[in-house]
Formats: sequence, structure tokens, C-alpha cells
Amino acid sequence: MTDERTKFLLPEDQMPTHWYNLTPDLPTPPPPPLNPATKQPAGPADLAAIFPEALIAQEVSTERWIPIPDAVAEIYRLWRPSPLYRAHRFEQALGTKARVYYKYEGASPVGSHKTNSAVAQAFYNKQAGIKRLCTETGAGQWGAALSFACQVFGLTCDVWQVRNSYETKPYRRIQMETFGAHVTPSPSDRTEIGRQLRERFPDTTGSLGMAISEAIEEAAKDPHANYSLGSVLNHVALHQTIIGLETLAQLELAGERLPDHLFACAGGGSNLAGLSFPFLHENLTAGASVHVRACEPAAAPSLTQGEYRYDFGDTGGFTPLLKMYTLGADFVPASVHAGGLRYHGMSPLVSAAYDQKLLDAVAIKQRDAFAAGVLFARAEGIIPASESNHAIAGAVAHLRAADNDADGQVVLIGLSGNGQLDLPAYADYLSGTMIDA
Amino acid sequence: MTDERTKFLLPEDQMPTHWYNLTPDLPTPPPPPLNPATKQPAGPADLAAIFPEALIAQEVSTERWIPIPDAVAEIYRLWRPSPLYRAHRFEQALGTKARVYYKYEGASPVGSHKTNSAVAQAFYNKQAGIKRLCTETGAGQWGAALSFACQVFGLTCDVWQVRNSYETKPYRRIQMETFGAHVTPSPSDRTEIGRQLRERFPDTTGSLGMAISEAIEEAAKDPHANYSLGSVLNHVALHQTIIGLETLAQLELAGERLPDHLFACAGGGSNLAGLSFPFLHENLTAGASVHVRACEPAAAPSLTQGEYRYDFGDTGGFTPLLKMYTLGADFVPASVHAGGLRYHGMSPLVSAAYDQKLLDAVAIKQRDAFAAGVLFARAEGIIPASESNHAIAGAVAHLRAADNDADGQVVLIGLSGNGQLDLPAYADYLSGTMIDA
Repeated sequence: MTDERTKFLLPEDQMPTHWYNLTPDLPTPPPPPLNPATKQPAGPADLAAIFPEALIAQEVSTERWIPIPDAVAEIYRLWRPSPLYRAHRFEQALGTKARVYYKYEGASPVGSHKTNSAVAQAFYNKQAGIKRLCTETGAGQWGAALSFACQVFGLTCDVWQVRNSYETKPYRRIQMETFGAHVTPSPSDRTEIGRQLRERFPDTTGSLGMAISEAIEEAAKDPHANYSLGSVLNHVALHQTIIGLETLAQLELAGERLPDHLFACAGGGSNLAGLSFPFLHENLTAGASVHVRACEPAAAPSLTQGEYRYDFGDTGGFTPLLKMYTLGADFVPASVHAGGLRYHGMSPLVSAAYDQKLLDAVAIKQRDAFAAGVLFARAEGIIPASESNHAIAGAVAHLRAADNDADGQVVLIGLSGNGQLDLPAYADYLSGTMIDA
Repeated sequence: MTDERTKFLLPEDQMPTHWYNLTPDLPTPPPPPLNPATKQPAGPADLAAIFPEALIAQEVSTERWIPIPDAVAEIYRLWRPSPLYRAHRFEQALGTKARVYYKYEGASPVGSHKTNSAVAQAFYNKQAGIKRLCTETGAGQWGAALSFACQVFGLTCDVWQVRNSYETKPYRRIQMETFGAHVTPSPSDRTEIGRQLRERFPDTTGSLGMAISEAIEEAAKDPHANYSLGSVLNHVALHQTIIGLETLAQLELAGERLPDHLFACAGGGSNLAGLSFPFLHENLTAGASVHVRACEPAAAPSLTQGEYRYDFGDTGGFTPLLKMYTLGADFVPASVHAGGLRYHGMSPLVSAAYDQKLLDAVAIKQRDAFAAGVLFARAEGIIPASESNHAIAGAVAHLRAADNDADGQVVLIGLSGNGQLDLPAYADYLSGTMIDA
């Protein structure tokens, strides 16, 4: 039984009360992070200089359900539960008989799913007596999310933004400043590593790896400051599971069964984890068979082209070693528009799920991503984020596959954000000048 | 009795089925538009060259309730009913004991209320066999809205965008092109009036008045094309009343009484009309006493500084003469950021309501507007549109007034749009360089 409505809006009092942790449900436990010096499993002490105790506990937790603190839920309610849409007009545009739904994270304070973890991280740091959070940002989505979250909890937010992005994409920087953050182009003269990098590479326009190193150095040397990361780590994936948990409740509200196919974009993996892990829980514990597909950029195809091995999370080698699918910590992706997907590795939990064949993956070229995004925008009235276009393109490829009788299939797409600040990328696509990477 | 929830979401099946027309409820009928040549009331024949019959009928209708066509309602449901929020955190930031609500139009396809009329206008033109709509746009919000609406109904959309805006603010242009519109910088060589203007003013960067003249000329000379206007006219105000009608239903859902004070920004007047007219209906027919305040920019203070007289709607003198509060059709507002409010006149229906003392008005300087907007953004997580900041500032001034005991007051703010594409204006404010106009 299906519903002819367009939107399925979960009442606030039905918002999930817990996040879901995939770790205890994995058939094989995920390999632990290692201390790079000793090659022994990294313990809480390895992380205590830059993370609060509560987040370290979540990082290594084997509890399945972790309660969402009231103070976090109160802020979530500013934009959550986020809407689930039935894509009636997109279905018509595709000429498919599948029932297509999308879960939309673009109505958050910064227009993407990133705030789900930012608010939680700011809360736990505030609770631990921390006064300042240091972070890095590339395209700026994570930096903007943490700026908002720090404003909410009265923390100072110090963002190192990749210099190229700082100089050429001012909108995100202004968004961060409007929310009260201090934004520094990276590499900067504010840190030892920044000064070294500027001396070695005087003309550098920066990289995410450099910016991470600056933020970690700054956080480690100030006892009142911590570091905050917007993807990859287990606690980030955990916070994002509210996306999938809400979607489960909304599909029930719609009188719809579980999806046959789920598509989500994957860079560091937090958005994919957030939407899909609660569905993997249904697969692993309740006999469901939701087919999950990670849609990664062809420019940074860590799952489909990388190796599953221990590697650093940053290019400077400051993080613990993480067991993940990786293209190598020194891999530099082509300059595609989906800045949020330009990462050399993949979340260890997503990597473990992929290794254990709980999900599969496809690499999407950006022209295909934007072709799908424009089709979607014209049908549904939402211009998707560059990253989200990869998920849409994955679904389009599936629904158009010649051997696929999609009649009656239920398809779920993760729309991780809106593309208002990605419009120059659309101009690049529409003008025919976009590189086919 | 009030509710502690943050959002009041009206189910789709409770979306209003009719628009509300203020005309029959006005104590004194609004003065008719005049044919500029004869000075006689303009009849349907004066408008038939550029508007379809159904919209002309709405323009002069004395029916109180006008049904929303199913095809329009279906598109509205992509983003409507729009949310009503209780601004708990903004109240705390202000330290007020008033209960403050805001109706948010920023989740529409283009981020503002403009789509409410664009979809209706495209529908009626399609129904009349029209193939192409011509319009003008300044900042780009109306052009983007009509681009989306034309895409939905399979019409060609031809937008003349003020050259200065076309060249310096590319995001809106790209948004229009993503929705499939053709955008031309104005003045252009495509029209007779455009060529004349370029010859007379070779260095001109254009104006809204010039762009209107080009779009009207183009629509009038093509039997398959019509012209479309995004504010001022009665049928535009009519379509926007879905905002206020939804709000009435949402306040009931919240267990809240009618507001004591309502604040909306006012440029051409469509957003103010849309939110406030259904509340004026309560005042005029049901003994309510909602105090409505139009918040206009100090740079274009038509209500507070203009004269109530017949004037042209455009600078070229192509429109019928409209009885309205006006600063004169040749008035050029200071270059403030709220492009959507930079208009010399005011909707004839809003003007009549003001003249008949059904609402009052205040002029807001843009620095005060942005100060209020930043306070709001940091509390509520929504960066408001430059225009909406005027409504917020109006409410802030009211709530902070020394002689005002706001304890227990109910205050409603119209949030006409989000400010994602207005971020450069926030940078201007935050850097301290904003002119105090």
C-alpha cells in the first residue's frame, strides 16, 4: 500500500531518541585504529589530547543504541525530523514505474547533513569544559556546520579553510562568519606546521590534509581547545544515523515497505553511514534485504579502486592509523566540484561493511552526476548539492538499466544537501565546460 | 494554551483550497487602475495583450475566495504547507517574554515566497495556450521563481535581468538557467526600447524599470507570449495569501491565539499582502485586532514617505496608472542589499489598506535590518534573506521598546526567504562597511 502524498513529515515527538551503532551488528568486528608509533591498538590516551571522553567512548563503543542528549535533541528540532519525499515528478521524468523516495538533509542550518554531528560534538565538548573547537574545512560545509553548533553552545570556533576555497568560494566563509566563527586560510602562519608548509611550498593554495594538520596542532597545544572532525570516524557515523532512523519511521508513516535499493553519496562516508546503517541493521537482525549502494566520485574512488589497509586519515600523518579503503594518504583527487567527496580514504565502519559485503559501490563521473542533478531539480524543485548528485546518478543508472524491470521497486535516495552554494558548478555543467572526471 | 514544540507542520491535506481576496472586505473599494491615455478605468482590453483572461479576472475580482486549481496545488505540495516556527531560542536571545513565531517561505524551490505566484501565473498562461513568458528580474528571486514554474508547465521562460545584477551576482542567473530559463542582461539589443536605452545611456548597468519595459515589449509583440509580474498587482497579492491562510491554521494547530502584532517586509508588497491579508480578514469580519506593520526599507520608503496618487508601475510608463503610495516612477533607491525591496511604489491593495488605516508602517535602515538578521541566524539557525531582515528588525524594535511590556504578547514575523544567496550582504555588514541607508 502506498500513499499519494508528496512529503512524509515525522512529528517532533516521534524523532528518534537514540543513535544506532553498527559495530555490534557487524559479522566481523572492525579492526581497531593503531598508534602509528607502536602499531598497537590506539587507546583513549592516544585521543584524549584532542577529543573529549564522551566522544572517545562513542568511538570505541559496542553498545547498539546510544541515547541522544536532550540538549542535542532540542537543537535538532530546529530542522529535524527532516522530510522524506516521494519523488512523483522525478519518477515521471524518468518514466519509471518504481516508487522513488528521497530523504532531504538540505533544510538544515547550513544546507547539509553535517550539522547532525556538529551539534553533538559541540555539546560533548562543552560538557567537558572545552572553550574552543578547532577544525578544518575544504568546500566549507563542515566548517559552517561546526560554526553554527559552536554558536549554539557558546564555544569559540576556529576554522582552517583550504586557502584556494577561502579565496575563490567566499559564500561558505561568510556563512561561517555569520554564525560567529573565526576563519583562517590554510596553510597559515598561526601554526608551526603551517609556517613550515608555507616555507616549503610558498605558492601552495592548501589542501584538506594541511588544514587538518593545522587544526590538530592548535587543538593539541591548548588545554581548553579540542579538535573536531566532520566525517570518517565512528562517532561521526553514529550521529548521522538519525537520518536513516527517521527514514524508517517515515516509510512506515507512508505505508511503504523497506526499499529494495538505497543510494547515497560517499566521500568520507558519514552521509552514507547515516542513511544506510539503520537499514543494514534491518538486514542483519530482521531478515530484510535492502540493497545499499555507495555512490562515490570517479575522481576519488576509494571503495572501487582503493586498497583495504591501514593508512593515515590525513596527509600529514598526525592521526592514528585507520583500517580503511584508501587511495593513499598522499592521493590528490582531480579538482571536481563535489568538494565534500574529495577524500583519499573511507570511513573504517563503511569500509568494514563493504569488505564484509554488506553494501556495494559504484564510481560516478561528475558530468553524469550533474546531468542527473539537473533532471532532478527541474522535476522536484530542489537543486541538489554537488555531492548529492552522485546518489541521484546512481539511482538513475539503476532505474535506466536495460536489464532492470523496476516496476514496483522501492528506491530510496539520500539527498545530503542543497546546491544553493554549488551554483557555479551547475554553470560549469550547463555551459559544457565541465571536465569529465 | 501554548505548545513547547518548535515547528508546526500542517499536513498536505489541510493545505488551504482557496486564495483570499481582500478587495470585497475593504471598507472603501480600491480605486481602479487607469488607462494612461484616456485616464478612464483600465478594462480587460487594456491588459489582454500581455495577461491571460483568468489573471485579468482575478485582478478585478470582487469574490472573497478564489479556488486554487488542482494542478497548482499539486506543485505547491512540493514545498507547501510551509513551516510555522516558534522562535524559542530567538526569544531567549532577546530576553523577551513574548511568544514569537515566524512563518518561513525559504524552503521553496528558489528560497523565497515568489514561487507561490509564479506557479499560478505559469499555470493560467499554459491553460490559455501561451508558449512563452517574458519577465524582468532585479536581484533574481522573481526570475528564478518564474523559471521553475515555466519548467513545470512546459513554457519557455525569457528573463531580462538588470545588467548590473547579471554581471555581479551570477548565482541567481545560474539558478534560472538550471531551471531552464533564457536570461538576457538588460538593457539588451533584443528589443526596440532596449536598443534606444543603450544608445541614450551607453554605460548604463540597467534598472528594474528598463527590464520591465523590455519584457513587456517582447510579450506584446508575440501572440504566443505573455508578460508576468512578480509583485504589486492584485492577482499576485491574491496568490500569496496562501501564506497567511496556512499560518492561521498552524496557529490553531499550536493551540495559540491570533497574534497581537504581525511584522512583514514590504517592497512591492506581495509578501506583506500574502501574510497579512488573511489576518486583516479576521480583523474586518470577525472582530480580531491583529496589529499589522509593514517593514519597508529606509532606502525606498513608499508608505512612510511617499504620496498616495496615481503613478506608473514602471519607469518607462508602459503600465496602466495605479493608485498607490509612490516615491515617483523615476525614484532611484540607494543601492541597498535588499534588492527585492527597491521599488518606488507599493501594491495598490496594500496602499488602500494603509490609506484606510488597516495597517501601519515603519522604515528600517539596512544596518539595523542585518543586526537583527545576524541575531536571528545565530539563535534559529536560518540565515534570513536581506528582505526578511527588515521584518525581523521591525519585531526587534517593537519587543525592545522601553514602553512595551511584551509579557504574554504573541508576535508573528514573516520570513519571506533564506539568505544563502545574500551572503555577500552579510559580509558587508560583518566587516563594518555597510552603508547606513
